[in-house]
Amino acid sequence: MKITKINYFTITATLLFGLHVLSYGETMNINNEIIPKKIAENALELREKTLNNNLSVEIVESITTEVGPRRMGTEGDKRAIAWAMNKFKQLGFDRYWTESVPLNRGWIRGDASAEIISPYPHNIVISALGYSVGTEGDLIGEIVEFKNIADLEAVPLGDSLKGKIVFISYSMTDTNPSEPRMNRYREGTKARGRGHVTAAQRGAEAIIIRSVGTDNNRYSHTGSGYGYKEGIKKIPAAAISPPDAVLIQNILKRNKPVLLKINLTSEIVGPKESANIIGEITGSEYPDEYLVLGAHIDSWDEGTGALDDGAGVGSMMAAAAFIGQMDKRPKRSIRVLLFSGEEIGFYGVNAYYEKHQHELNKHILGAEVDSGGGRVHTLVPGVGPNSLPVIKEMYKFVAPLGIELSEENNANGASDMSVLGKAGMPALNFTQNSNDYFKYHHTPNDTFDKIIPEDMRYLTSAYATIFYLASDLSVDYRK
Amino acid sequence: MKITKINYFTITATLLFGLHVLSYGETMNINNEIIPKKIAENALELREKTLNNNLSVEIVESITTEVGPRRMGTEGDKRAIAWAMNKFKQLGFDRYWTESVPLNRGWIRGDASAEIISPYPHNIVISALGYSVGTEGDLIGEIVEFKNIADLEAVPLGDSLKGKIVFISYSMTDTNPSEPRMNRYREGTKARGRGHVTAAQRGAEAIIIRSVGTDNNRYSHTGSGYGYKEGIKKIPAAAISPPDAVLIQNILKRNKPVLLKINLTSEIVGPKESANIIGEITGSEYPDEYLVLGAHIDSWDEGTGALDDGAGVGSMMAAAAFIGQMDKRPKRSIRVLLFSGEEIGFYGVNAYYEKHQHELNKHILGAEVDSGGGRVHTLVPGVGPNSLPVIKEMYKFVAPLGIELSEENNANGASDMSVLGKAGMPALNFTQNSNDYFKYHHTPNDTFDKIIPEDMRYLTSAYATIFYLASDLSVDYRK
Repeated sequence: MKITKINYFTITATLLFGLHVLSYGETMNINNEIIPKKIAENALELREKTLNNNLSVEIVESITTEVGPRRMGTEGDKRAIAWAMNKFKQLGFDRYWTESVPLNRGWIRGDASAEIISPYPHNIVISALGYSVGTEGDLIGEIVEFKNIADLEAVPLGDSLKGKIVFISYSMTDTNPSEPRMNRYREGTKARGRGHVTAAQRGAEAIIIRSVGTDNNRYSHTGSGYGYKEGIKKIPAAAISPPDAVLIQNILKRNKPVLLKINLTSEIVGPKESANIIGEITGSEYPDEYLVLGAHIDSWDEGTGALDDGAGVGSMMAAAAFIGQMDKRPKRSIRVLLFSGEEIGFYGVNAYYEKHQHELNKHILGAEVDSGGGRVHTLVPGVGPNSLPVIKEMYKFVAPLGIELSEENNANGASDMSVLGKAGMPALNFTQNSNDYFKYHHTPNDTFDKIIPEDMRYLTSAYATIFYLASDLSVDYRK
Repeated sequence: MKITKINYFTITATLLFGLHVLSYGETMNINNEIIPKKIAENALELREKTLNNNLSVEIVESITTEVGPRRMGTEGDKRAIAWAMNKFKQLGFDRYWTESVPLNRGWIRGDASAEIISPYPHNIVISALGYSVGTEGDLIGEIVEFKNIADLEAVPLGDSLKGKIVFISYSMTDTNPSEPRMNRYREGTKARGRGHVTAAQRGAEAIIIRSVGTDNNRYSHTGSGYGYKEGIKKIPAAAISPPDAVLIQNILKRNKPVLLKINLTSEIVGPKESANIIGEITGSEYPDEYLVLGAHIDSWDEGTGALDDGAGVGSMMAAAAFIGQMDKRPKRSIRVLLFSGEEIGFYGVNAYYEKHQHELNKHILGAEVDSGGGRVHTLVPGVGPNSLPVIKEMYKFVAPLGIELSEENNANGASDMSVLGKAGMPALNFTQNSNDYFKYHHTPNDTFDKIIPEDMRYLTSAYATIFYLASDLSVDYRK
């Protein structure tokens, strides 16, 4: 095994004056049987270039400013598709195209308002959950609080909640703070996903949930339910803001009936058309072998989708674009997959899988960013045992970004990409600091000003560096 | 001069088990010629009791839950007056009454909406500034940005801004961060206060300002303008959220005309009636000498006024109530003055002054809390030179709360109370940590969950301790 020391500063010295210089030391030990010297030098140069360039941030600024909200099937979605095609062109991608994604039903959010009418009048900040039916005028009911979905499920099936509005007060922040945040999110999404069915099976007229999020802002976090079930009454479902949830709980403590009036003009409508948008930096030797970088183009409709998932769109488009700006094309193709309809149930990736499953074996390695723009902290591989040593060698290039290598080797790819990962595609994740993510996501407050440019540069650099290496090395990560 | 050492723990040992115990040491040196031993012991006991009792928090919870928004002249204001009378009764005040405060004109907020219609469609979060006229249907204009009010004032009088919507993008957070926060707030309020007149004098159709606040949340901070001027066109005035201000600035960078549509249904209406509410713990020896603790009962109308000024109402009512719970009434009377209409221009305190100026000399010492519920850090006196040594002796009782004594002796009393302070009443302020205050105030997000109970207890304890001492000592603070 031949070991070559590459002097880091001989690399950075070739770059432009004023670049960010890492303070991690001067030398790296690279096994040049795994990563040839020229490829290693390219990777380091690319890492430094991406660390010092705001392209990913500019892309998020562009989609949030020029497009804004882009829920699947809406006019914003159409503008986003046109925006993405144009952006791939501007960024010099070799090929870019759309692939149709049908949506079996559309949804109109309409207006949402709520007020407590007794014992104390209060306006309540409320948002319909995705694909909720409307209230058909004012719906008035007495609020009955349940601490979580399990407490609601403990009520026998029947009509004991007739005339009532179920309120699930589960709080991500107040409940089991020692539990990992993602587990608390999943607990919250149980009520968001199936609460309307569970409540209807007990006779309730509507369901409201405390928003699933970690903030104390007076916004509702919308999100997607799992849909209505045949034969079970379709009741409206909505999220209220955390401060309004606290208010309602405080009023309930006074042991007086709390009457809530809700008015939602939401409506489920006919089928819509959407599309995945794919941009490719075409490989010079193995153009039909694909490294795939995923993000979802759709967003919820009350903010501009900066963190969810503008950050993914920006970092992945930029990472591939930087690889495309190198002196020559890498051996394998890099594809950026911008998936439609993640928020309402993986519509885009499912359509992609259906269309491309015959060539899934050509998908060499995949990853997705869908946790905001926060700093990357851990590389989690999900590859075959024989290629793990290659990943460990590749990892050395991003370790100086403050990234650790997980001892696990079980990544499926995040979000959409997990569909391909579970179907057998090798994957990796860079897990990120997502402390603020659940404060903003799915609210009107998910806007461009929440993006932290330096964190976005680190995120982009990590993916660009690793995926460049994967594109110029001829490794089969399935093995 | 006789010095008696009071052992702190002999005091706290007489209190209930489980009380908060300060770690500041065991002894205090008190000059018993200034503060007799019994009064000193009472003050220490009171301080500890208030530090360990959530009454102030409970009062904020009560007004925000049972009343909610209470802008002067609204139904909420009426409910607040009834609430305050009932609360003074519950808390055992000896006397409580209302004093009428006429309001020469009312205002209906109505609805507010705005959208960018070109070059990119976006909904904009907007709130009418207090006492703005409405738009009489949709108002459409091209946005012209000014960095601050001075830049707008530099435009010659005339009609050069005809057809335009003036946008003042001054940001409390991005501009001169080394400048004290309060100065940046005042700079922002210049545009809020007189921007509509300044813009109208240059032909503009409307004015929008970036909200005057320190947050990055998608709320507008409303606030009060200085009113319209006779002979100058009355144009609508509104605040937009900080993220929307950033969005508009980013669109403007693209050098395309930005068309904004605004619709405000605000309306200035006829006169209204309101009231100050006053509660008294009547003095045992000098009942017609008053220590006055102020706060304002009114709030803006989109949140529940927890920080502005529920925290003042809660801390001042509780401080006086605790003094009322002592074994015997202090020598002088303690009055809690809950002022009407602070937010729209000191209506309540001006009415109070007019009614009570003949007995202003009976107002021995005053203070007001109107900066949220944050931790107290500095005692600033505003008394005659001969009584300053007494203040310094009184200060020793609150020093263990982490409070410093200012070297200045120029306090007029905060907010409303400054009207009485400037008219000659001695005053003091406890300045507070108000880091979060300008994130929430005047927005829908000023809600009870933002109250930090421990900070409220410290605040209440500081005022209770000092004002108890002032009520049992026969000092003339004018001297």
